Amino acid sequence: MALAPSIGIDLLRMPAKGTPSRWRESDSSLISVKMVYADRATMLKAVDEIRQLLGESIVSVDSDDLDEHGYSEWSTSNTDVRPVAVVRPQTTEEVSSIARICTKYKVPIIPYGAGSSVEGNFSCPHSGVCLDLSGMDRIVAFHPEDMDIVVQAGVNWTNMNEEIKNTGLFLPLDPSPTALIVLSDGSVIKTRHRPRKTSAGYNLTGLFTGSEGTLGIITEATLKLAIIPENFSVATATFSTVKEAADAAFKMMRRGIPLAALEMMDDVQMKVINQSGGAGGRLWDEHPTLFLKFSGSQNAVQDSIKSAKEIAKSNSCRSFEFAKTEDEMQSLWSARKQALWANLAVRPEGTQIWSTDVAVPLSRMAELIEISKQKASELGLYNSVLGHVGDGNFHQVVMYNPHDKTERQAVSDCVDGMMVRALAMEGTVSGEHGIGLGKKHCLQKELGPATIGIMKAIKDTLDPQ
Amino acid sequence: MALAPSIGIDLLRMPAKGTPSRWRESDSSLISVKMVYADRATMLKAVDEIRQLLGESIVSVDSDDLDEHGYSEWSTSNTDVRPVAVVRPQTTEEVSSIARICTKYKVPIIPYGAGSSVEGNFSCPHSGVCLDLSGMDRIVAFHPEDMDIVVQAGVNWTNMNEEIKNTGLFLPLDPSPTALIVLSDGSVIKTRHRPRKTSAGYNLTGLFTGSEGTLGIITEATLKLAIIPENFSVATATFSTVKEAADAAFKMMRRGIPLAALEMMDDVQMKVINQSGGAGGRLWDEHPTLFLKFSGSQNAVQDSIKSAKEIAKSNSCRSFEFAKTEDEMQSLWSARKQALWANLAVRPEGTQIWSTDVAVPLSRMAELIEISKQKASELGLYNSVLGHVGDGNFHQVVMYNPHDKTERQAVSDCVDGMMVRALAMEGTVSGEHGIGLGKKHCLQKELGPATIGIMKAIKDTLDPQ
Repeated sequence: MALAPSIGIDLLRMPAKGTPSRWRESDSSLISVKMVYADRATMLKAVDEIRQLLGESIVSVDSDDLDEHGYSEWSTSNTDVRPVAVVRPQTTEEVSSIARICTKYKVPIIPYGAGSSVEGNFSCPHSGVCLDLSGMDRIVAFHPEDMDIVVQAGVNWTNMNEEIKNTGLFLPLDPSPTALIVLSDGSVIKTRHRPRKTSAGYNLTGLFTGSEGTLGIITEATLKLAIIPENFSVATATFSTVKEAADAAFKMMRRGIPLAALEMMDDVQMKVINQSGGAGGRLWDEHPTLFLKFSGSQNAVQDSIKSAKEIAKSNSCRSFEFAKTEDEMQSLWSARKQALWANLAVRPEGTQIWSTDVAVPLSRMAELIEISKQKASELGLYNSVLGHVGDGNFHQVVMYNPHDKTERQAVSDCVDGMMVRALAMEGTVSGEHGIGLGKKHCLQKELGPATIGIMKAIKDTLDPQ
Repeated sequence: MALAPSIGIDLLRMPAKGTPSRWRESDSSLISVKMVYADRATMLKAVDEIRQLLGESIVSVDSDDLDEHGYSEWSTSNTDVRPVAVVRPQTTEEVSSIARICTKYKVPIIPYGAGSSVEGNFSCPHSGVCLDLSGMDRIVAFHPEDMDIVVQAGVNWTNMNEEIKNTGLFLPLDPSPTALIVLSDGSVIKTRHRPRKTSAGYNLTGLFTGSEGTLGIITEATLKLAIIPENFSVATATFSTVKEAADAAFKMMRRGIPLAALEMMDDVQMKVINQSGGAGGRLWDEHPTLFLKFSGSQNAVQDSIKSAKEIAKSNSCRSFEFAKTEDEMQSLWSARKQALWANLAVRPEGTQIWSTDVAVPLSRMAELIEISKQKASELGLYNSVLGHVGDGNFHQVVMYNPHDKTERQAVSDCVDGMMVRALAMEGTVSGEHGIGLGKKHCLQKELGPATIGIMKAIKDTLDPQ
């Protein structure tokens, strides 16, 4: 088996043991070798074996199912290849059995979660078996007294939060403390124990969770929970330019205002939301807008809103609104939540969405957004921006015609240009989306051969096939 | 070179490439082989080469210096072996050269930071060269506008906070986003770029920072900074039992009171502080005490104190004090800060301190503290407890006579018993101290051979010697 072969196929040939410099930039042994996977007939044989061992119902070869697991309309890195089968395990033991069989027959296995990835993270250029974990949606153990919860990999976090909300706890998307991992050969490890803190051994949790399924398959995770704040409020502030909005946001951060969320949408994104008829039926001012979320005690929230408003005003904001009721709060925040769906809803017939993200040091974000918008606009293409300002991370969405080769190439160049500019600012080519197939070439540019060599060596050690 | 051989010496023999099951529990190839390091003469030859390349002043063979770098009075896992030399590089390039030379001669190299580790993390059972990074204390670049700072590995964080405090920023001890690492063979990698968020490639920062110097030497780190809160306040609450104190602490957490710190000291620790004459000259009630730190806007801090006091009272606290002035705040908090030094100050002539820590799920902490105190007291030994309650993590300090073999064994058994009980509660054998030499055998118990096998495979890949 090779986990998520999109990253794993260019294997590092390892020289004799004991040569310490095998990952070095200058090392001539660092060449790419093509891994040979099973042919289609052998893959189907493996699928038969899975069927025999785990039952008919676990395997699907339905062509629509295969399509949905090898292609998505929000990914820009789809290939024409499809998996030979989709398998839907329900337990760690079943995942382990599937991995063992796939290893035996050299069948690539592609872990699949919710299918939301946009960089071809679940594309399968060498076919293989798609391992859909969405059926593993059980809460294994809930420990409110320890403020943690053990869940299977396919649990939907909003459903989970709904289910446990009467305990006053929720998942604030903090990193998970421990995970059960199935390795490429089917063996199962637990990365660490359950306490909220540990310094026992290497941080395997962090290594596996950041690996997009290429080092091992997470089947179970223990998540740290936080307390649902007693009060929430949201506010929006509109500015004439992205720079003014970003400046105000950074001033709020530097003032130390505790913000539960700090998001920015540009003029085009606000227009998209109006066009899609979303956000509580109201029409928004079509200018760069900050979305602020405050939480804490009633007094703390009031202090925060007061300070945020002062800063927004002193930064020439066009308007500052805060929600006085729960309904108003829902209405204000819904505009933020609907951003992606709004883009999908209003795109012209036949166009596709190219969604990408980068992150840069805070002080460079506004500049990079403005250049990126300008470059996309010069192509005459509809493009919008949504920024997670507190991280210096933003998404740009460009609508283009995938059948127009020139246009496709132009968008691709435009996105590449954004990566290059982000790197020149000491930024990263991916704040959230991961690497997948889509940003493989950019990762090389970002980290260079020495660091990539270390990553390849780890991959090769943990998943030699 | 072998980095920090205390973990690295039991190498995993790697079978032929392509055997996917090499780390499995049942795999008979998972045997320990003894690595042969250079003899003393060869080690001295390597030191000569370092001297010739980097100058006389970088190398020390002073016997007091060697002792201080191979032994510490707060470690329980000292060996009799000392390094052949201490080297003090000032740049990443110098670290790289030293590593390259040590690799050539198979000389173990032991990275040394501030010497604060208690589990023999810088012991050198096979001798070697101690790489003291304390001279690498430069701030490389400070970016207040990006809220980050790039520092060399030896920078003292309290000095650094003092130096940058006029910008309103400080290091809240959040994980570092990026690091420059020197690998065992002297090659240098940068784990990632500088933004506050990334999803580009494997999380090498987390892997190396958690490895106690066994996978590579961190020479430079970029640290995320936070905003110094506009208001601070501290309070103490005293209870009759550890259980009452812990219960009150958890209720404060569950109420969602934003606590900047939440610490507990037991009756003995309070007595130690009184005996050592510390803490602003005042005498403390010698009962289990919570130390609380609040931060935020003035109203937020007042709300927090009010809620914390309510909970403490309803949990039968003996007293609740909060600081009304800066001086009172310093005085209250100084008791917490002086805990370790107070223990060292009051221990009887000829005794040593055995300091250990574990972490367990929150709900089990009070129970484990009470059992651990009882077990140590049954030995007739002075012992105190300090807990980081928010993490379910606590330290126990036992004073014993190291020359009394029976007493030493009894303390060792007592500490081992605490580990076993922590593991039975799904806890970890080390919340903060790391593994070093002292807890190697416990790590095996905690994680088992499959997970340890993965760690060994990674070690072997990155540092084959």
